Amino acid sequence: MAETRRIIIDTDPGQDDAIAILLAMGSPELEIAGLTTVAGNVPLDLTTANALKLCELAGRTDIPVVAGSIRPLVRPLVTAEAVHGKTGLDGSGLPDPTTRPVPGHAVDWIIDTIMAAPEGTYTLCPLGPLTNIASALVREPRIAPRIREIVFMGGGFFEGGNTTPAAEFNIYVDPHAAHVVMTSGIKLTMVPLDVTHKALTTRAWLDRVAALGTPAAKSVVGMLDFFERFDMDRYGMTGAPLHDPCVIAYLLKPELFGGRDCHVAIELSGEHTLGMTVVDWWGMAGKWGGTDRPKNCRVLRDIDAAGFFELIYQALQRL
Amino acid sequence: MAETRRIIIDTDPGQDDAIAILLAMGSPELEIAGLTTVAGNVPLDLTTANALKLCELAGRTDIPVVAGSIRPLVRPLVTAEAVHGKTGLDGSGLPDPTTRPVPGHAVDWIIDTIMAAPEGTYTLCPLGPLTNIASALVREPRIAPRIREIVFMGGGFFEGGNTTPAAEFNIYVDPHAAHVVMTSGIKLTMVPLDVTHKALTTRAWLDRVAALGTPAAKSVVGMLDFFERFDMDRYGMTGAPLHDPCVIAYLLKPELFGGRDCHVAIELSGEHTLGMTVVDWWGMAGKWGGTDRPKNCRVLRDIDAAGFFELIYQALQRL
Amino acid sequence: MAETRRIIIDTDPGQDDAIAILLAMGSPELEIAGLTTVAGNVPLDLTTANALKLCELAGRTDIPVVAGSIRPLVRPLVTAEAVHGKTGLDGSGLPDPTTRPVPGHAVDWIIDTIMAAPEGTYTLCPLGPLTNIASALVREPRIAPRIREIVFMGGGFFEGGNTTPAAEFNIYVDPHAAHVVMTSGIKLTMVPLDVTHKALTTRAWLDRVAALGTPAAKSVVGMLDFFERFDMDRYGMTGAPLHDPCVIAYLLKPELFGGRDCHVAIELSGEHTLGMTVVDWWGMAGKWGGTDRPKNCRVLRDIDAAGFFELIYQALQRL
Amino acid sequence: MAETRRIIIDTDPGQDDAIAILLAMGSPELEIAGLTTVAGNVPLDLTTANALKLCELAGRTDIPVVAGSIRPLVRPLVTAEAVHGKTGLDGSGLPDPTTRPVPGHAVDWIIDTIMAAPEGTYTLCPLGPLTNIASALVREPRIAPRIREIVFMGGGFFEGGNTTPAAEFNIYVDPHAAHVVMTSGIKLTMVPLDVTHKALTTRAWLDRVAALGTPAAKSVVGMLDFFERFDMDRYGMTGAPLHDPCVIAYLLKPELFGGRDCHVAIELSGEHTLGMTVVDWWGMAGKWGGTDRPKNCRVLRDIDAAGFFELIYQALQRL
Repeated sequence: MAETRRIIIDTDPGQDDAIAILLAMGSPELEIAGLTTVAGNVPLDLTTANALKLCELAGRTDIPVVAGSIRPLVRPLVTAEAVHGKTGLDGSGLPDPTTRPVPGHAVDWIIDTIMAAPEGTYTLCPLGPLTNIASALVREPRIAPRIREIVFMGGGFFEGGNTTPAAEFNIYVDPHAAHVVMTSGIKLTMVPLDVTHKALTTRAWLDRVAALGTPAAKSVVGMLDFFERFDMDRYGMTGAPLHDPCVIAYLLKPELFGGRDCHVAIELSGEHTLGMTVVDWWGMAGKWGGTDRPKNCRVLRDIDAAGFFELIYQALQRL
Repeated sequence: MAETRRIIIDTDPGQDDAIAILLAMGSPELEIAGLTTVAGNVPLDLTTANALKLCELAGRTDIPVVAGSIRPLVRPLVTAEAVHGKTGLDGSGLPDPTTRPVPGHAVDWIIDTIMAAPEGTYTLCPLGPLTNIASALVREPRIAPRIREIVFMGGGFFEGGNTTPAAEFNIYVDPHAAHVVMTSGIKLTMVPLDVTHKALTTRAWLDRVAALGTPAAKSVVGMLDFFERFDMDRYGMTGAPLHDPCVIAYLLKPELFGGRDCHVAIELSGEHTLGMTVVDWWGMAGKWGGTDRPKNCRVLRDIDAAGFFELIYQALQRL
Repeated sequence: MAETRRIIIDTDPGQDDAIAILLAMGSPELEIAGLTTVAGNVPLDLTTANALKLCELAGRTDIPVVAGSIRPLVRPLVTAEAVHGKTGLDGSGLPDPTTRPVPGHAVDWIIDTIMAAPEGTYTLCPLGPLTNIASALVREPRIAPRIREIVFMGGGFFEGGNTTPAAEFNIYVDPHAAHVVMTSGIKLTMVPLDVTHKALTTRAWLDRVAALGTPAAKSVVGMLDFFERFDMDRYGMTGAPLHDPCVIAYLLKPELFGGRDCHVAIELSGEHTLGMTVVDWWGMAGKWGGTDRPKNCRVLRDIDAAGFFELIYQALQRL
Repeated sequence: MAETRRIIIDTDPGQDDAIAILLAMGSPELEIAGLTTVAGNVPLDLTTANALKLCELAGRTDIPVVAGSIRPLVRPLVTAEAVHGKTGLDGSGLPDPTTRPVPGHAVDWIIDTIMAAPEGTYTLCPLGPLTNIASALVREPRIAPRIREIVFMGGGFFEGGNTTPAAEFNIYVDPHAAHVVMTSGIKLTMVPLDVTHKALTTRAWLDRVAALGTPAAKSVVGMLDFFERFDMDRYGMTGAPLHDPCVIAYLLKPELFGGRDCHVAIELSGEHTLGMTVVDWWGMAGKWGGTDRPKNCRVLRDIDAAGFFELIYQALQRL
């Protein structure tokens, strides 16, 4: 059997973060070194509490939860209670956590963990604003060449944004952090709305999950019943887009996804486009200001949704 | 029979401009008051010569051709010979024109024509950069309430751009002119790449056109054989996107198109997004800086391609 | 005797424009080919009426007054009634004009006048927003090499702005026009606030002018009594800064002024600096983005104020 | 006798940082809690070594030196060896340090020190890019109300910039950090080029210092002989501007300085004005976008240079 892959999940749960975390917990191919939390969907105290709740739900209180950045690098914090509810996990039915985060700051924990292991050990899986990751890179640039790769949920190009017409939430909340990551030279894979809006829950799948009857399954169904309301209302979608689980699914089965290596720039100065992920999908770099446009990011665009939902189902079965 | 609609076509031909002009010439529902030219696909002397050639080809030298803006409002001119060839009508086989443009500047001709007619008489059909239209609005703001509507080819949102990753050629060449038009209060319909990239020529249709055997049909086939190479190479398209004819087709049969009234902003200050048409398709205005986001533009996104190509075929039959 | 210099004064009077125009009218070394008007300090109908009033006051109704741009190229018009009063010439005591502007648009008149004369004939003296000049350059780029030079009042660098902290009024009103002029390749001299804020009226000088007892002298004193209130209040100045007359004085006696050839850029995309004239006084181009920073403008910074006011006094004596 | 003021000096020495630190060390009114270092004039390893050297020179190895940020928050590091020489302290004749920085990161040390003391205990004195201070505020926002005030060297308004025409070095290197500090709500005093360019060394003063004959005095004279070359060459100054010592002098004798409470904004998106400190000295906020323009910073503009240099002389006497 192949070696497990060691990952750090940086997260601001969020119902879809929760499914992603449960997917990773239920996948023996992955070893979660820790959950680091960040302010995003809801403020930091809630995202940290939510991470702890999920560890309890899955019986994985052995995984360290480390609280991280309370606000973005440069701009004031924007949150998304309209999507996720007041707690970030509305619908989950989970009680307050009985455990505590490990002491210290997530940025330090990320740095120390990476520096202490052999080069290429860790894959980072950011599911929220990239504040912790960028702060770690600014504080200790030597982690960059030691990171195996970063696969993050964020951005949107052909699909547009979900917070402004041009910007997706995670990048909009901390565009400067996204710029730091995008220009870091680390191997990057972006999981944008272009792919996650094709990962829509169906009633049949939710029924199958409900039939599992486990506490985790019940929480998942409850959370998704709450979560799907927002995008079904806005976009007329037939289900909820499972953004963050795509990151974990890509690590487990990359063959479920289609994408392309591109130059990606983060717009930091547009009046109407702040936080946009400008993807040079068609290779126009030559016209677009020319020289300095390396293919710095793999951009996913397609997904085998059936295979994706089967993967989550199987993981939930194992929990 | 319904009254004909009086239109002014502002154009920088370009093969697809040519088809648009021939479509209008072959449609009795439309009365072309004049062709005004602008620098864009190729420099002004060529776009003006091309407009004259097309009038000759169609036997419509009665239509005034008026030369307009030689450069954009603020930025230096960018042209697109890579797409259209050196003349702008490469492939058409058309000889040099034997007629001359009418004296004067297109901007003045547009103003004088609109001011001399009853309010609501003219529909403007810009097929290139919006320099002439914006210059007319700046020079004589009183034309704004007298214009019936403006239907223009330009922009792109969910489809991205075709000149930079975020910007379509017509808007990129003169984003400041586009901003003036977009904030003019005039009734606007935008025909972006989102719709025109679905209006792809097919071999079967080209064969039908070729079978017409007329000089116009022969030129059309020749031009499109040349024109389709660029986008087939870049995008792997199966035919050429007929951008500009969509504007005329929309006037003739709006039921062939689907769209939505939206706020549209032109990005004038982004580092990577200059000239992007930022379309608030999903109504995020509230989050996106809030108050001042009127639905200033109808944005087309869908097309009945079969109906569209049939419309062009029938017009070519009539020429 | 030296040949006279032929100038076109482009203006939005304005009390200080008025003094500039009277200075030119009273200076035999200058031949005013025409006064072209632009919206700026007050709307176009008022600036045009004011130009006519000044011709009447000076008995120079032979000078053509031509009305020009009613609004800036890209942005909506901003005016400055707080400084100049409701009419733009508050305090002048001048009646409504009895003459009319010559027909046609100032932009065309500028183009036609320049194209009809030998190369190098005309010096342009813009005293307001640069809308007319930029529009002429966009409409007929061939005028650029035919213009002898442009000496304009506008901008400010070490002195800051007077409309926003970073931007001076004339440039702030139409920064895009300023950019077109600044990148035109024409010989340019900028007369910024850095020099005009050193050209302050004194009570003694006003008394000397009043003693002339002529209608022009009375109007000048009345206008300046009104005009000086604004800047004395804001800046604690001891008199009124005579911005626009510096342009004419520089043509008459350049030795009264000190300055330097610099690269000047117009900021078009700053959040807080729109319309700033960024002057590379100290030659930092190398660090400041490097290569493409030609010395495109002579920037004045010093003035012999005594000599300047004597020049105006002598011109008023002659009227 | 008045209580001493407890300060943290955040620094990137640099010859003028060195004089500032020696001035503080020689002033019994100030108690230096620590020297925190940042990348700026030279890379972090050199600024940290230089801080240690200065402690040794002054016999103050009891003061903790803590190494901080190795790069700015968002942009890549820019350094200034052209001004300060390869080591940052060229001319000082100081040997390599024999002591070591205390373990840990300056950002944590700043946070811990402030959180451990009563509210209002510490004054921060940043003499370099504001990276450490901003990082501390982002990491632990609760320090903001506990800081007594921040007096920093940086920016320039009426004097322009010294790195680009509009931006001073400290702010240009990390404009995003400056924005975080400027919008923090902490009591701020800015010591810009407007004041420091009036604090020029003279030969007579250097001779008096040299006559002190102490090791510190010798190093100061050596450093300033090196340091003054740059600005004397560029600006034609008659001596070296002692930027950073003005911060310490302001704490010791605020009556030596003149200034005003203003709104200050950091330009983050200008094409030519990135990192400019836009100071609303004249209270134009109303016009300048209106509402949200609090007076967030005291801006110094004038200095009693004789008193300033006497203060430094006396401190050097005490060392």
